[in-house]
Amino acid sequence: MGSNRVVVYKGPGEVEVESIDYPRLEVPKEVADHFRITQKAPHAAILKVTTTNICGSDQHMVRGRTTAPVGQTLGHEITGEVVEAGEDVLFVREGDICSVPFNIACGRCRMCEEGKTGICLNVNPARAGAAYGYVDMGGWIGGQAEYVMVPYADFNLLKFPDRDQALEKILDLTMLSDIFPTGYHGAYTAGVTTGSTVYVAGAGPVGLAAAHSAQLLGASVVMVGDMNADRLRQAESFGCVGIDLTTDGTLEEKIAEVTGDPEVDAAVDAVGFEARGHGADADEAPATVLNDCMGVARAGAGIGIPGLYVTGDPGAVDDAAKEGTLGVRLGLGWAKSHHFMTGQCPVKQYNRKLMNLILHDKADIAKAVRATKISLDEAPQGYQQFDSGAAQKFVIDPHGMAAV
Amino acid sequence: MGSNRVVVYKGPGEVEVESIDYPRLEVPKEVADHFRITQKAPHAAILKVTTTNICGSDQHMVRGRTTAPVGQTLGHEITGEVVEAGEDVLFVREGDICSVPFNIACGRCRMCEEGKTGICLNVNPARAGAAYGYVDMGGWIGGQAEYVMVPYADFNLLKFPDRDQALEKILDLTMLSDIFPTGYHGAYTAGVTTGSTVYVAGAGPVGLAAAHSAQLLGASVVMVGDMNADRLRQAESFGCVGIDLTTDGTLEEKIAEVTGDPEVDAAVDAVGFEARGHGADADEAPATVLNDCMGVARAGAGIGIPGLYVTGDPGAVDDAAKEGTLGVRLGLGWAKSHHFMTGQCPVKQYNRKLMNLILHDKADIAKAVRATKISLDEAPQGYQQFDSGAAQKFVIDPHGMAAV
Amino acid sequence: MGSNRVVVYKGPGEVEVESIDYPRLEVPKEVADHFRITQKAPHAAILKVTTTNICGSDQHMVRGRTTAPVGQTLGHEITGEVVEAGEDVLFVREGDICSVPFNIACGRCRMCEEGKTGICLNVNPARAGAAYGYVDMGGWIGGQAEYVMVPYADFNLLKFPDRDQALEKILDLTMLSDIFPTGYHGAYTAGVTTGSTVYVAGAGPVGLAAAHSAQLLGASVVMVGDMNADRLRQAESFGCVGIDLTTDGTLEEKIAEVTGDPEVDAAVDAVGFEARGHGADADEAPATVLNDCMGVARAGAGIGIPGLYVTGDPGAVDDAAKEGTLGVRLGLGWAKSHHFMTGQCPVKQYNRKLMNLILHDKADIAKAVRATKISLDEAPQGYQQFDSGAAQKFVIDPHGMAAV
Amino acid sequence: MGSNRVVVYKGPGEVEVESIDYPRLEVPKEVADHFRITQKAPHAAILKVTTTNICGSDQHMVRGRTTAPVGQTLGHEITGEVVEAGEDVLFVREGDICSVPFNIACGRCRMCEEGKTGICLNVNPARAGAAYGYVDMGGWIGGQAEYVMVPYADFNLLKFPDRDQALEKILDLTMLSDIFPTGYHGAYTAGVTTGSTVYVAGAGPVGLAAAHSAQLLGASVVMVGDMNADRLRQAESFGCVGIDLTTDGTLEEKIAEVTGDPEVDAAVDAVGFEARGHGADADEAPATVLNDCMGVARAGAGIGIPGLYVTGDPGAVDDAAKEGTLGVRLGLGWAKSHHFMTGQCPVKQYNRKLMNLILHDKADIAKAVRATKISLDEAPQGYQQFDSGAAQKFVIDPHGMAAV
Repeated sequence: MGSNRVVVYKGPGEVEVESIDYPRLEVPKEVADHFRITQKAPHAAILKVTTTNICGSDQHMVRGRTTAPVGQTLGHEITGEVVEAGEDVLFVREGDICSVPFNIACGRCRMCEEGKTGICLNVNPARAGAAYGYVDMGGWIGGQAEYVMVPYADFNLLKFPDRDQALEKILDLTMLSDIFPTGYHGAYTAGVTTGSTVYVAGAGPVGLAAAHSAQLLGASVVMVGDMNADRLRQAESFGCVGIDLTTDGTLEEKIAEVTGDPEVDAAVDAVGFEARGHGADADEAPATVLNDCMGVARAGAGIGIPGLYVTGDPGAVDDAAKEGTLGVRLGLGWAKSHHFMTGQCPVKQYNRKLMNLILHDKADIAKAVRATKISLDEAPQGYQQFDSGAAQKFVIDPHGMAAV
Repeated sequence: MGSNRVVVYKGPGEVEVESIDYPRLEVPKEVADHFRITQKAPHAAILKVTTTNICGSDQHMVRGRTTAPVGQTLGHEITGEVVEAGEDVLFVREGDICSVPFNIACGRCRMCEEGKTGICLNVNPARAGAAYGYVDMGGWIGGQAEYVMVPYADFNLLKFPDRDQALEKILDLTMLSDIFPTGYHGAYTAGVTTGSTVYVAGAGPVGLAAAHSAQLLGASVVMVGDMNADRLRQAESFGCVGIDLTTDGTLEEKIAEVTGDPEVDAAVDAVGFEARGHGADADEAPATVLNDCMGVARAGAGIGIPGLYVTGDPGAVDDAAKEGTLGVRLGLGWAKSHHFMTGQCPVKQYNRKLMNLILHDKADIAKAVRATKISLDEAPQGYQQFDSGAAQKFVIDPHGMAAV
Repeated sequence: MGSNRVVVYKGPGEVEVESIDYPRLEVPKEVADHFRITQKAPHAAILKVTTTNICGSDQHMVRGRTTAPVGQTLGHEITGEVVEAGEDVLFVREGDICSVPFNIACGRCRMCEEGKTGICLNVNPARAGAAYGYVDMGGWIGGQAEYVMVPYADFNLLKFPDRDQALEKILDLTMLSDIFPTGYHGAYTAGVTTGSTVYVAGAGPVGLAAAHSAQLLGASVVMVGDMNADRLRQAESFGCVGIDLTTDGTLEEKIAEVTGDPEVDAAVDAVGFEARGHGADADEAPATVLNDCMGVARAGAGIGIPGLYVTGDPGAVDDAAKEGTLGVRLGLGWAKSHHFMTGQCPVKQYNRKLMNLILHDKADIAKAVRATKISLDEAPQGYQQFDSGAAQKFVIDPHGMAAV
Repeated sequence: MGSNRVVVYKGPGEVEVESIDYPRLEVPKEVADHFRITQKAPHAAILKVTTTNICGSDQHMVRGRTTAPVGQTLGHEITGEVVEAGEDVLFVREGDICSVPFNIACGRCRMCEEGKTGICLNVNPARAGAAYGYVDMGGWIGGQAEYVMVPYADFNLLKFPDRDQALEKILDLTMLSDIFPTGYHGAYTAGVTTGSTVYVAGAGPVGLAAAHSAQLLGASVVMVGDMNADRLRQAESFGCVGIDLTTDGTLEEKIAEVTGDPEVDAAVDAVGFEARGHGADADEAPATVLNDCMGVARAGAGIGIPGLYVTGDPGAVDDAAKEGTLGVRLGLGWAKSHHFMTGQCPVKQYNRKLMNLILHDKADIAKAVRATKISLDEAPQGYQQFDSGAAQKFVIDPHGMAAV
């Protein structure tokens, strides 16, 4: 019980599984110092990790596109079993299997009281909002590991009602920690509702989750654009229409072929700052996807932006982009009265609702993103395959607990 | 009765009052042709103009910053008395004094049924949304005139309940056609509510209207930034705090001096694309104001953008800006989970509410913007004075009808 | 072309098809007089009725439970083809097949501008809101007829994009005039959203439409209570759980058997004032259903009330009920922080969205309510069968136009 | 430090100040047992009570209109200084002066995560929602005392930023624990917004708080109805129009005299179940006020119901009313498409916003309700005076800490 194995960033393109100390019921020293609280955390719990997924935003770090230092522990998509709890953890108990929202939140600040758990004010000295295993996100240890510490456990943890059922549906439930709510947030904030036509930019896991969420929100047509043929096939496998961005023709034309109308009711940017232009050999063009979304979104539409944009990108194409300043077609957006919804998904606003769908067999998120189970030791290969464009979502099962 | 006098754009820096035909109950030919409807408009009314205001967005045209042709009639802030009505005008009647929303809307399309009258689908062949006397806005004749034609009159006109009361309060009520709702829209979409701290960028008439609206929405502190000392004084005259952008120190520091906090709950960009950088001799820097707003808006805040951004600006500082592509600090906005609310104000969503405040002496918009009455013949001087930074809002009274 | 055949109320339990004048482009005299407008209606259109459905609220009249006079024309669920249009009808044209919202609205008053078309201020001298063929609803002629006049046609009519497709899907599309939006309104205002557990009281057509709408809004479980075995089977045919109210046990117990929890997230009263108590031989008990809904709705829930409650019910069980005063468990509702959403559905808020679902094969409303086509002459039998509890929705096709 | 003095209910019409044990950091045994948690409460704090107010809902108990047992401790409107805190209280500290929402909430359940702190699921074995010093509300000790224990202190307490400022404005700030948010909730849920005309039923403290809140929300006219002349004068003292219910004429007529219209945009029932009919000698008529509100609220209006309705009223006028079943004009409400918003105010949704107004001198709630400071020993007289209809709000200052 004295140690813990965790995935660690070792430099551009490299991750390894390393041993670190077993977690303690303590907040990071930098957090305690900054907020003048004790490190001791009676509100925290330790979880034995049931499943933990590799995320596209982990890839930004691993590709060297952030300021993450070598040694950064990784993993913020975590599901686990409570194995130890502080004395102020009252409502979740040992043995409970729970989903962990990737955004760490205190449940006690003004933002948390408004439900904005993605920008909690008490968990990160550097800015509003924190996450496990992520650069500039508060120094919390990553959860692509055997064990992980979760602070403010009563607030953060979403308990699954039945243990056996949870382990059977674990490949779906594991998506509740991040991408299912994140995709849903993108679709929901874009205004997708009964009857909407929707365009989702990007057929990676978040894009697929946004597309499935759009279906669950009642969309009449969901189109997903990408340049990766496998990912387009994946989107089509559950009823979406794939839009191949490598072929001739404008996006408006391609959409009009599907619906008879070059514009959609709502658009979701599920790509973010590492966007590339259209066509097979397009260069990186960081605002392309967002600008595309404006082009095809009808007047009055919302644009949901779950795709990540950053304030510091050492590998960016130009100086402005290095600090997150991008060439946005603001004139067009204004002329069309668009509204733009940015930021981390506040997972707690959605995870309970989506859990209920999964438990009643009304959502098939594992199938939509093609969840693929691997062991902790296989994590490095998982990172590689995902980076090379595999149309899969890798789910690490460190203890072989999944019943599927 | 055979003619009509109207303010006309004569080239950069120049406007004149000219005679044109008396209005007819007809829609512009380009509108009729495009939408395959008759020009004959039984839904239209002709108004004798009581008051009509000079707007900052008129100035964009007059400065030559748009593609407006010489001869463009001007004026979209109109209040008037119904003097003639088509046979399908049923609920407003001759003699009624009414406010005319600057956005022309049909009341019959999907956008109008959703209340989005700023992007009506049936009034402009070029795009969603139309206005009187404006380039690319459908070819409707301007209302800085003696008479003006209003289509879909039952839908567009807001009738004042009492004629005498209306003429007494006309300097307040005349602001209902555009800047009062537009300012309110900026504050409202930014999320201003009970207790909010608010920063409004720009102390021109729309900024002042946004600031007064923020007060009416329950703000606890309203700060208004500008580089024009007279306009700052004007903001302070009704209880706002002026933020002088010409002095040393960051905007965050100046705000913290007022409230103890460098961030505000909501920010409003009431400047738009002709923004300049800070400091006395700053150059034009089209996204500066919006980027400033992101800097001072707290995480989770909304940013209301009533300030105009355009898709074509022949006088812009660079090629990207000429087509409305600006360097936006998207990384910062995303990190702070901002949402950005753009576009023309849908006047009808707010004008009735604000009229009720004026009629019950609960809003002082004329005083806030320093309404100044002039004759139609004085319009050219009004344009000049306004362009030179006068802290005034010029109200043309073509027939000397105002009781004040 | 000089005459028209229409279903007419002939006294308790009796309806007949009679000949009346062919419709004119005129509003009812009582409406014109009250609102001081001309009867002549350039805004109106005449429709050849494609389909028109028998509604549960028609039954209230036919059972003699309202003050409807003998001779009242019937029918407010209308779909039809435009065959004549006034000169101010600009955007729908002859040949268009359109859905007619049952609530008549002017599109020009304050309520219409807020989207509250169920309480339009300009169409009924007696109160806010009007409908075709209904007592106290403005004197508009009913649409269970060959032809019908629709005022404010550009505003009221929802055009189907393709004529052939419309005639093929007509049994679904015909539900857009009332029960599909009405059921959706019940579920939506009750707060049904992703993952909700829902109880719908009543398995008549509106209850079934509410249940299907709850599914489309993302409910995880939808339960429908009734005492009619056929109607319960009908609810189960499309994935709902039937709750048999004739058997022993409380409603809470029956719900707990399904979900493990005696309470639901949202409840819909789709019965209204002719409710009876539980058990096979229960008497009428007008607030029973609403009180049941409070019992099973969790704290904080909304209760959607599309079921009709009236201000005058000559056949009521007691004097208070005769004027619509019922014994409501207000103490319970208050203790649970419920909110109660009443009134006519504003059809226009939903019909376009639901049409989009139907046209893209994402909603099966005809199947859910078991749409059954009959001729105009069969209308009297349709009324009888429906009143005797048939688990069917009768759709009159006066001209044999339906392609199914 | 071993004891504490608290106001206690001694039987109908009687309260006394008694000594009880000094508070401990423990939850009530019944709460701990029911929810299977320890009594020990590291999340709790002990407050030295700065001010604590007598509430109209206390009067229901003291009048014997509830099932409160003799010995029930009283007081749920509490402001205090933190003097002791459990080890999981991290963000409020000793010396902080804080407002205590009257509704006790855990901050960790589904309702709390939705902001519905009035119906927290973890604090009361009997039902959702709890309060200090109230029958059936979880057994928490009352705060009309020298000291009080507050559980989940980081979540429940609203800290005032500056101690001296707090003590100077304490007569305003003390209203944040209940009546100011409760009145605001009534106005807000009724839909009061910019320009609304509003009717508030009841000029007791909650009614006055609702009236002042309506002003802060932007109402154009606020009318307050009561039968107590002093209370009407109090309402008029801050700009409302008093409506005297003892005189001849209908409520509709009286309202029309003020605004020219017999209906209002929003209505608030600030009376609740102990309502009496109109006229000087009217009997109790428990649904009268709510029915009045329906009469005067326009079609489409909301009705906010902060006035308390109960499930058990031993002193009610009839058997139905004894269990909270009242004769509600549901037919009328339905015909007018009203929505009814009931339940305890979730204080945390509003108290921070309202605090910001007070701290910036934008709200005058102490003046509006005529706050009157008394000592703890004067509490019994305070109860008597309030019950006899004094137009005052009594604020107990047990330690003489208020700086006013």
